[in-house]
Amino acid sequence: MENGAGNGMAVAAAAAAAAPAATWNFAPNEALLGLTALSVRGVLGRVKAGMVAGGGARPVIPMGHGDPSVFPCFRTAPEAVDAVAGALRSWEHNSYSTCVGLEPARRSIAKYLSHNLPYELSPDDVYLTSGCAQAIEIICSVLARPGANILLPRPGYLFYEARAVFNGMEARYYDLLPEKDWEVDIHGVQALADENTVAMVIVNPGNPCGNVYTYEHLAKVAETARKLGIFVITDEVYAHLTFGERKFVPMGVFGEVAPVFTLGSISKRWLVPGWRLGWIVTNDPNSVFQRTKVVDSIKSYLDISSDPPTFVQGAIPNLLENTKEEFFDKTVKILRETSDICWEKLKGISAITCPSKPEGSMFVMVKLDLTCLQDIKDDMDFCCRLAKEELVVLLPGCAVGYKNWLRITFAIDPSSLEDGLDRLKSFCLRHSKPTK
Amino acid sequence: MENGAGNGMAVAAAAAAAAPAATWNFAPNEALLGLTALSVRGVLGRVKAGMVAGGGARPVIPMGHGDPSVFPCFRTAPEAVDAVAGALRSWEHNSYSTCVGLEPARRSIAKYLSHNLPYELSPDDVYLTSGCAQAIEIICSVLARPGANILLPRPGYLFYEARAVFNGMEARYYDLLPEKDWEVDIHGVQALADENTVAMVIVNPGNPCGNVYTYEHLAKVAETARKLGIFVITDEVYAHLTFGERKFVPMGVFGEVAPVFTLGSISKRWLVPGWRLGWIVTNDPNSVFQRTKVVDSIKSYLDISSDPPTFVQGAIPNLLENTKEEFFDKTVKILRETSDICWEKLKGISAITCPSKPEGSMFVMVKLDLTCLQDIKDDMDFCCRLAKEELVVLLPGCAVGYKNWLRITFAIDPSSLEDGLDRLKSFCLRHSKPTK
Repeated sequence: MENGAGNGMAVAAAAAAAAPAATWNFAPNEALLGLTALSVRGVLGRVKAGMVAGGGARPVIPMGHGDPSVFPCFRTAPEAVDAVAGALRSWEHNSYSTCVGLEPARRSIAKYLSHNLPYELSPDDVYLTSGCAQAIEIICSVLARPGANILLPRPGYLFYEARAVFNGMEARYYDLLPEKDWEVDIHGVQALADENTVAMVIVNPGNPCGNVYTYEHLAKVAETARKLGIFVITDEVYAHLTFGERKFVPMGVFGEVAPVFTLGSISKRWLVPGWRLGWIVTNDPNSVFQRTKVVDSIKSYLDISSDPPTFVQGAIPNLLENTKEEFFDKTVKILRETSDICWEKLKGISAITCPSKPEGSMFVMVKLDLTCLQDIKDDMDFCCRLAKEELVVLLPGCAVGYKNWLRITFAIDPSSLEDGLDRLKSFCLRHSKPTK
Repeated sequence: MENGAGNGMAVAAAAAAAAPAATWNFAPNEALLGLTALSVRGVLGRVKAGMVAGGGARPVIPMGHGDPSVFPCFRTAPEAVDAVAGALRSWEHNSYSTCVGLEPARRSIAKYLSHNLPYELSPDDVYLTSGCAQAIEIICSVLARPGANILLPRPGYLFYEARAVFNGMEARYYDLLPEKDWEVDIHGVQALADENTVAMVIVNPGNPCGNVYTYEHLAKVAETARKLGIFVITDEVYAHLTFGERKFVPMGVFGEVAPVFTLGSISKRWLVPGWRLGWIVTNDPNSVFQRTKVVDSIKSYLDISSDPPTFVQGAIPNLLENTKEEFFDKTVKILRETSDICWEKLKGISAITCPSKPEGSMFVMVKLDLTCLQDIKDDMDFCCRLAKEELVVLLPGCAVGYKNWLRITFAIDPSSLEDGLDRLKSFCLRHSKPTK
C-alpha cells in the first residue's frame, strides 16, 4: 500500500469509536429474499446441504441438474474449444461489443436457425445474451408493465416466475398434461388469459418433462396465442437433443400466426453451459415486434445490460459452422442409451411411476408414491435423505412447481446412471412400508 | 427440416388469412424506452450516426469511450491470454459455476485486493459478476425497495441512474467540485440525504473526471456516510491506473467506519473490457452487511442471474498472480504520456477549458465555451458535427449529466491522440466566432 493505508485501520477504529453506534438505512427487499426458493440452484443447494461426501468409497451421482459436461463422454467438440481459443488469441475481440452482439455472430445464428424454418431470419432478428438465463431476464424486463401477466407451464422452470415477479409481472400457471405426453392444456391457457396477458412460455424439448412437441400441437399453440393476442416465448435450449420418434420442430415455424421469441443457447447441444452464450431471436415475418416497439424495448434494455464476452461472440461463426455432425450424433446416441436405461430401471422401483418415456432434453419427471414409503414427508424430504444416505442428487418436484414428483437427469455417463438408479432403488426398498 | 416445416409457411399463412387481423396485448414499458438516452453506448451511437467513415484517407479517432484495446500499445498481457486459454483447454471449466462464483477465483481476488487494505478479505467477501455493468445491476437490484433513494455523483456514469430507476429507486445527484479536483461536495451530500437514502456512489479513480481522491478526502466520505447511516458504493474499475502525484487508495480502507461495496473488474487494468469479468466485494469488518441481510439479498439475486463464463472465472488465479509488473508499468507510462499530450494540446484550444489535469483513469472533463463558437447549439451538436466533419468521436457531457462539457478519452495511441486533438483544434477554429 503506497499511501497511508497502513494507519487506515487505526483511523477507522478511532472514527468508529468516537461516533455513536451507527444505524443503517438499508432494509432488505423481502420479495427478493423469497425468490431463491424458486431457483433450481437454491433448491439443489438445500438438497446437498446434508450430504457428507468424500468419506466413503462411493462417488456422488449428480442427477439433479442439466449439466453433464463433467463426464468425459459428454465433453464438448474440440472444434468448439478451438473456435473460442482462436477468437481469444486473435487480439480482435478484447473490446466491448455492441449491445445487440457482434454482427458476424448474429448472422451465423440467423443462418443456423433458418435451416429449420420456412423463411430466412436476418441478423437483426438475433440478440446475443449471457446464456439463456439472461435471455429470460431480458424478455421478462421488456414485457413487464404494471398489471401485466405471463402464462407459464407447470411443471416448469421457476426461473421464469422469479424474473417475472421481480419485474412486477404476475405469473399464472397452465398445466402440462402428463397423460398426453406433457402437451399444453390449451383449454387451461384460454381460461387463464385475459386482456393483461402478454405472453405464454413453452419449453420444447421439455425441461423438466423430456417431452417433444409435434408439429400439430405447436400449430394449436400458435393459433391459441393469436386468438388471445399474446406472444409465444419458446425456450429451445434443448433443440435437437431428441432421441425418440419425434423430431424437434422449432416454434418459429409458426411465426406468421403469432409472433415468437425463441430463446436458445450453445449450452446444451454443445455441452458447455459454463460458456454462457445464448440468444433471443424474433420469429416474426409480419413485423409485429417492430410495430409494437418490442424491438426498441429490447435494445433499450440491452443498452443497460452486460453482454456475453466479446471473444465468445467472435467464436460463434466458427463454432456453428465447423462442429462435425458426428459430435452431435454421439451425444444423441448416449442420451438415447441413458434414457433407455432410466426408463427400464425406473420400472423396477415401486414407489416411482413414470407417465411417459422421455424423447428429448436430459430429464424425466416421475411421480413419487408416498403411500408406499414410511417416514418420508414429501419430495424435498425424499431428495434430502436420498442425498444424505446414497449420495444421489435428484431435483424435488417443488423446484419445478410439482409437489411430490421428482426430476431425474439421465444425462450422465451410463455406468454412473446405473449406479445412481440402483442406489435410488435400494433407498426406496429400505424406506418402503412393510407389506401386510 | 425433418418434420413438416416445409409446409409450415403455407399452414401459417392459411391460419393468418382465416383469422381476423390480430391485435396484440403488448404495450411497451415507456420508462425502459427512455433509459437508452442515459447510456454511454446510446449517446455515442447518436454521435456516430452521421459519420461517413472509410471514404477518405483519414481514420476515425475513437476518443469517446474507455476501451483502448484495439490499439497495439494497449494490448493485454500475454500471460492473461494464456491464463484464459489454459482454463478453456483444461476441460474443467465447461460446467455451470456456483452463483457467487468459483472459490479459487474469489480467493485470489480477496488476496489481490487485501494487498492495499489494513485487514484481510475473505473469499466470502467476493462475488463474481459479468463485468462491472452487472455488478451495478446487482447492487441496484439489491438496494431497491419502495421509496429508497441513492446518491450519485454529477458528472457521473448514468448507467447507475438507469439501473436504479429501472428498479424503482430514486436517483439524487450530488456535485463533484471541478475547482477542487472533482472532490465530493460533502455538504451537498448531507443536504440531499434523508431517512430513505440507502447508499452513495463514488468513482475513484474518476470516470469521467480523471481525478484521484486522497486518503483524507476518502476518510471524510466514510465519516459522512456513517453519520447519514448509508453505505458507500465505490466504483474502482480504474484502480491503479494513476499517473500523477496521487496514488490510488481503495475506499475499503474505511470499511470499519462505514460498510463499503467495492466494484471492480479486470476490464481496465488488464485492458480487456470485452472479457466481462468483474466483482462486488464487501469491505465490512463489522459485518453490517451480514446483520442487515444485504449478503442474503445479494445471494438471492445472484441465484436468478447469469454468471460470468466459468472458464474465465477459472483463469482468474493465474491471471492475477502471473501478470508481470512490467505490463502494468507500461500501461501507466503510456497513460502518463497521453494525458500530458492531452493537457498540453487542450491549452491551445480557446473554446475549451480544462479545470484540472487528470491523474487517473482514461478521461478528462473539459468545459465547452459556446460563446466562442458560432452555429453550435450545445455539447451534443458539437460532438455530432465533430464526428461528421473530423471523424473524431468525443462524448458529450449530457451523457454524464454535465451539459455543455465534453469527456475526452486520452487512452488511445499517442500519435492518434495528437492527430485527434489537432483535428479538434481545426474544428474549433473553423467554427469560432470572428473576433471583432
